[in-house]
Amino acid sequence: MPSPREAEPELQAAIDDVAATVSKTMEHLLPQTDDAEGYLYDAMRFSSLGGGKRLRPFLVMQSAKLFNVDPTRAKRAAAALEFIHCYSLVHDDLPAMDDADTRRGKPSTHRKFDEATAILAGDALQALGFEILSDNQTHEDPRVRCQLISAMAKAAGGHGMCGGQMLDLIGETEEFDMGTISRLQRLKTGMLMAFACEAGGILGKADEAHRKALRGYAHDLGLAFQVTDDILDVEGDENDTGKPANQDEAAGKATFVSTLGKDQARMRAEMLVAQACRHLHVFGDRANMLKKFAHYVLERRA
Amino acid sequence: MPSPREAEPELQAAIDDVAATVSKTMEHLLPQTDDAEGYLYDAMRFSSLGGGKRLRPFLVMQSAKLFNVDPTRAKRAAAALEFIHCYSLVHDDLPAMDDADTRRGKPSTHRKFDEATAILAGDALQALGFEILSDNQTHEDPRVRCQLISAMAKAAGGHGMCGGQMLDLIGETEEFDMGTISRLQRLKTGMLMAFACEAGGILGKADEAHRKALRGYAHDLGLAFQVTDDILDVEGDENDTGKPANQDEAAGKATFVSTLGKDQARMRAEMLVAQACRHLHVFGDRANMLKKFAHYVLERRA
Repeated sequence: MPSPREAEPELQAAIDDVAATVSKTMEHLLPQTDDAEGYLYDAMRFSSLGGGKRLRPFLVMQSAKLFNVDPTRAKRAAAALEFIHCYSLVHDDLPAMDDADTRRGKPSTHRKFDEATAILAGDALQALGFEILSDNQTHEDPRVRCQLISAMAKAAGGHGMCGGQMLDLIGETEEFDMGTISRLQRLKTGMLMAFACEAGGILGKADEAHRKALRGYAHDLGLAFQVTDDILDVEGDENDTGKPANQDEAAGKATFVSTLGKDQARMRAEMLVAQACRHLHVFGDRANMLKKFAHYVLERRA
Repeated sequence: MPSPREAEPELQAAIDDVAATVSKTMEHLLPQTDDAEGYLYDAMRFSSLGGGKRLRPFLVMQSAKLFNVDPTRAKRAAAALEFIHCYSLVHDDLPAMDDADTRRGKPSTHRKFDEATAILAGDALQALGFEILSDNQTHEDPRVRCQLISAMAKAAGGHGMCGGQMLDLIGETEEFDMGTISRLQRLKTGMLMAFACEAGGILGKADEAHRKALRGYAHDLGLAFQVTDDILDVEGDENDTGKPANQDEAAGKATFVSTLGKDQARMRAEMLVAQACRHLHVFGDRANMLKKFAHYVLERRA
């Protein structure tokens, strides 16, 4: 019998399958180069191609499936989003930010290369994400491409991921109330997760009701994801998570765990997952994998 | 009589006019916010709204004029590009990169705020640039918007500005030949200048011959711009350029001046400007301002 903290076999197979195919697409979209700037591409490839759970791509592929989107298109959107996610990890790890020496059990990009190269690799990965979405291979309708770009830019920008990261840094020295912690997490993680889920709807030209359902799912899932992240920070095994335990506490960061306590945080996560799944009722059985995924987020150990 | 190194009055008035109107558009596109992440927006606004010559916006506006593009649209494309340019300055100034304490006579962003905030402000400014281009206020035809996004992403990315910046850093410790120095400059400055010139053609749905002429102009102008930048680094007055003299030499950077000598470099710049202007013959008198601008690049002192 599998450990209760492992994804059930069908879900795990689906996650592994997406990770493999989207990683291949990313490899194809970020080829090695003989140009003089090849060193930068080494750093970009190191930062984005060597593993990673590819959970955001999984959400793109699954949400796209709900609307019968051509998988070759969905894979490109998933890759674009994952490049954005990878750029954010490279910059988050920088000495001036989280100052992390390792990432996914490997050296962080600025440790493997150097700080300047890591900054530039992150910058170039962000540009690459938008370049991929603008290409007509991602969708033949330029209106759809612009919608994807607009949504990803907002999710990644100042009122999205970057804003959340800013709040995270401010939270090291300031006491936040629950409202601000929730906003921090929604911006830092939630917006990009929401984009992952909505991307399928955009690619499939879904109507507003279906998009709203996906956004609702993503919103609750994103918060649940962050709460379990906070729990993993205090409970997780470095061998599983690939990063040292108690980093948040050491950095004095306000988290759900530090504010609510571990048990309350776990209850909050469970409630959020139940709520996330209720949003998916409109899709019936076809959303089973997304529902399973929400439960997996709760039980994951890395 | 004006000094021969000042732009002639008609050109100067046109440059000032663009700087004022595009700055206003940028101000409008990057409003102050009461949200918790307001500190990040302070840094973004500090990095992009306080002055700057707005030379790239000038090229966008002038090239757009050749095809009778609605100026309210051109202004948005110009603003998007300038946000990208500003993000690159913020990251270039970081301690791990050029380690510059001042920019345009003011403290650099990481000196005014802190390093982490400067990294995030740059990241968010890049996302903002793409968000602006994806909006239908920039052009009603989504195909045009996607072309702008694709061209800007390529110009800013790993085989564009970021790649050039990478070469610039490598050049501090490695000896480059003229071919590699030319590539460095083309990527670092030329590609974004080329996008500035081509943006007008894209917005105006110009045919390939006209776009090619603009690219040719931009290519030579970009190189001339970089050569004069190198000359200004050794000759310029800190009061004009807003940065200390001989920064490149101190950093051991390979430049046109260090490789060719100052006189040869100036001759090269003059030749490039003449060549740039020849590309514009296809536009007749309507391109006079762009021709004047090329000569101004040669004579500028900041």
